[in-house]
Amino acid sequence: MLMGGYHIAVVGATGAAGTELLRVLERRSFPVASLRPIGSARSAGKSVQFCGDSIPVEKIDARSFEKIDIAFFSAGGDVSRNYVPIPCQADAIAIDKSSAFRMDPHVPLVIPEINAEDLKLHRGVIANPNCTTTVMLMALYPLHKIFRVQRVFAATYQAVSGSGTRGVQELTRQTKTWREENCSRRPVGDARETASDQPGSTPPATDSDPATVFPHPIAFNLLPHVDSFLESGYTKEEVKMQDETRKIMHLPDLRVSATCVRVPI
Amino acid sequence: MLMGGYHIAVVGATGAAGTELLRVLERRSFPVASLRPIGSARSAGKSVQFCGDSIPVEKIDARSFEKIDIAFFSAGGDVSRNYVPIPCQADAIAIDKSSAFRMDPHVPLVIPEINAEDLKLHRGVIANPNCTTTVMLMALYPLHKIFRVQRVFAATYQAVSGSGTRGVQELTRQTKTWREENCSRRPVGDARETASDQPGSTPPATDSDPATVFPHPIAFNLLPHVDSFLESGYTKEEVKMQDETRKIMHLPDLRVSATCVRVPI
Repeated sequence: MLMGGYHIAVVGATGAAGTELLRVLERRSFPVASLRPIGSARSAGKSVQFCGDSIPVEKIDARSFEKIDIAFFSAGGDVSRNYVPIPCQADAIAIDKSSAFRMDPHVPLVIPEINAEDLKLHRGVIANPNCTTTVMLMALYPLHKIFRVQRVFAATYQAVSGSGTRGVQELTRQTKTWREENCSRRPVGDARETASDQPGSTPPATDSDPATVFPHPIAFNLLPHVDSFLESGYTKEEVKMQDETRKIMHLPDLRVSATCVRVPI
Repeated sequence: MLMGGYHIAVVGATGAAGTELLRVLERRSFPVASLRPIGSARSAGKSVQFCGDSIPVEKIDARSFEKIDIAFFSAGGDVSRNYVPIPCQADAIAIDKSSAFRMDPHVPLVIPEINAEDLKLHRGVIANPNCTTTVMLMALYPLHKIFRVQRVFAATYQAVSGSGTRGVQELTRQTKTWREENCSRRPVGDARETASDQPGSTPPATDSDPATVFPHPIAFNLLPHVDSFLESGYTKEEVKMQDETRKIMHLPDLRVSATCVRVPI
């Protein structure tokens, strides 16, 4: 650690997870000597707010991590696969929110309240679990310590924010479209609702308002389809919950079955 | 059966379930000699459409079931408790959608695909299971026949229509309110969404738009609270799924645990 704190890089600083990370660093008064927000070509030129300063976002490249102590990655698996090795090999620590390295045997996958000890084994990369895994295990692990968990059946209800900022915008936009297509003909509160006036009966995405983040309309809908489907019939999200639970709890044979559902909140 | 079909009464004919029942009778060309739609004082004077006719709704009273062969009840438990005995004692059959008589030992609780045989034991009242139980068992029973089910863990995602027409109207109204409070300041599609512009961040029910059907806002929200809570921590809806499953499957000791969640669709 350098005098005055750590030199921090945040990859994906303008995304939903990156924005929240900046707020957490502020709230916890994390000792930040300098902050370097990093993004895609699309984000470069934007800026982020941190401790009262407006800091421009830099486009990611191989030199982005020079003199960095800790690099946080929250820009998806591809970006992590390409760039995590750079700070990691330069004696910095990469803390990765993506799924790219989670199951690598030399990468600690850590929920501090559960397996903080695993941090000692890191070789430059520390992985964060899937958000769904984290929420489940924060409830499950204390029960496990007392009762020894034998099997896990989990069903999730996952907000669109888990898909990032664009997922939230898609729900917002589809809801606005529904409102315009269904509610402009008569005054609000008019009791003469008809079937076609009700949310569930009107798929909100039309040709002029296509779904892009989710595979189907998400407003007034539920999608048991988070991440992509695998041959087994489970989705990647479900398999992440299963595999990550076993790794974090150090129970390689634990039987876990998850059903993950995206909900319009 | 009288020549030409059955004399049918439908209690709760203007509600969500009653309306759907009328559509099913039409679609299946059920042999209806006469139809008597029955409702509360509030519904009397309205009319329902049946096979091209508009039929006025009569206010329920003790004489509503004279000369009726089959009386369908879908107006809630209190109405059923008060009025089901009347057609039942007059040699008609009452088919009750409410939960009032489901667990009575002499009342068959029937999903025709599973336990149609139980119909033979009726003493004038036949109960329909909770909709959630029916959906679950239609999938579970065929598996049970092959594998013998040992334990059931169920999680539900229940549309607002399960709360009746007023539930659907409440979701519609809260969504309209959200739209007005959040989207009138700038053009739709404007990319400058802010946190307060996003569904999840704005509880849609305000003082001027109170929740009445659901205990909390339902738009952009999930309520793990269907029907009321019992001392055990389960809701009545969850206990219905548990008890009704055991009765319908003739497995009084089956271990069933359900989590029922209302979702904004």
